[in-house]
Amino acid sequence: MRAVLDTMGGDAGPAAPIEAALCFLRRHPDDELLLVGKSEIIEETAARHGMDLDVARLNIANCDQVIEPGDEPVRAIRKKRDSSMVRGLYALRANEVDFMVSSGNTGALMAGAVMIVGRISAIERPGLSSIIPKLDQRDLVMLDLGAGVDIKPASLLQYALMGSAYARVVMGREMPKVALLNIGTEAGKGDRLRREGYSLLKEWGGGTAFHFVGNLEARDLLRSDVDVVVTDGFTGNMVLKCFEGTIDAVREITRRGMNSGT
Amino acid sequence: MRAVLDTMGGDAGPAAPIEAALCFLRRHPDDELLLVGKSEIIEETAARHGMDLDVARLNIANCDQVIEPGDEPVRAIRKKRDSSMVRGLYALRANEVDFMVSSGNTGALMAGAVMIVGRISAIERPGLSSIIPKLDQRDLVMLDLGAGVDIKPASLLQYALMGSAYARVVMGREMPKVALLNIGTEAGKGDRLRREGYSLLKEWGGGTAFHFVGNLEARDLLRSDVDVVVTDGFTGNMVLKCFEGTIDAVREITRRGMNSGT
Repeated sequence: MRAVLDTMGGDAGPAAPIEAALCFLRRHPDDELLLVGKSEIIEETAARHGMDLDVARLNIANCDQVIEPGDEPVRAIRKKRDSSMVRGLYALRANEVDFMVSSGNTGALMAGAVMIVGRISAIERPGLSSIIPKLDQRDLVMLDLGAGVDIKPASLLQYALMGSAYARVVMGREMPKVALLNIGTEAGKGDRLRREGYSLLKEWGGGTAFHFVGNLEARDLLRSDVDVVVTDGFTGNMVLKCFEGTIDAVREITRRGMNSGT
Repeated sequence: MRAVLDTMGGDAGPAAPIEAALCFLRRHPDDELLLVGKSEIIEETAARHGMDLDVARLNIANCDQVIEPGDEPVRAIRKKRDSSMVRGLYALRANEVDFMVSSGNTGALMAGAVMIVGRISAIERPGLSSIIPKLDQRDLVMLDLGAGVDIKPASLLQYALMGSAYARVVMGREMPKVALLNIGTEAGKGDRLRREGYSLLKEWGGGTAFHFVGNLEARDLLRSDVDVVVTDGFTGNMVLKCFEGTIDAVREITRRGMNSGT
């Protein structure tokens, strides 16, 4: 496999992606990696951290521009042609690499992926996914988490197809079990999007690409035995932030309890 | 105040509502209470628990039918005219009482409230609300939690008005702060319902009936200083169940940790 890694994204500066790149090459002796970013900064950072960039299978492509977190996505992709993100996406488009990793501006990455690399046939819009750890120590992949709001039911089916491909290839689940996030388990529950999405998922989820197991309530997400959970971007984002907020509150309550106990 | 209490709802049978009724009358020496339900069962239950129903300001209205949890709501309200729920709603309609409490079939209660008691002028649909305890030890009221899916933006404004009335009268908040549950804090975030709802809330929330404070993310719900949070029934129900599921998972992880520690 050949990968491209955008060193200019991420909150912690380029040290983390450079270290990750070297670690990746050590663990995967047949793979190649292309670093994109300001080569001066990459080299300075590596030197300061005592990291040796003179490694086989590692290449660096210099780019003089950086897409910032606050940049307007589409405009940034159009204007910053010499940014690390745009350079990486063109490497992907030209088949110089098999996949790209970036922790930069999410909106720009999504817009750039669609504008430069393009969509898979029959997939109308991109999805943002996350790996959710469950109580049974297995992970599930959930999407969409905010790429699409006001979607059509067909998008739920497309998320199911993309999530299943990920579950099969990356997580090793042969016939992924897909559930629709909903406010009840019975068919016919939820709003129009859910009811129409349910029918589509049932029609296509008979075991060719994935196995549709029906509706799943947010209450049962962490206890479920499914591999993929599909929802619209508004709901997915809401649920993800709700997890964060609840865990944060539990931590705060625990901290107070400990302080008052001393 | 005069209240009607439906003794036939609730998972624990009529003992809990009867005990609540007696407790209510002790604490509120000027209020009156009407119990509706099968008087034979009410009297038997009271006797078995040593509760004295021969109390001033307490009346019992016998009803021979019961609306069951599995009953189809509209059909149940139409057919079971001598049920405790329908009897209570008619007492409310006739101004025999000021409010009604029932823990019976939620769908039937909502349908019956609309069909028998009617809606307040300018309120197009009922809302289901819940009191959410926050980290600052103050409560907020959140609605809707599932009465309305596929709602129009105007419903969000109506939920704000109803939630504010509750916050003012029941919780004593003079000028309730209302927030819109959304996936970002900036105006313009979210789907079409949120964007149009935001404009309406901003237009009306200048401090006559309530004060609109903008968007609130689910992550910040338990840390916020608002009194009322409005959302559509699908999202509200999802968020509520997400809280439950996360707390449940934390409990499970803690239990495992304790067991493995022994």
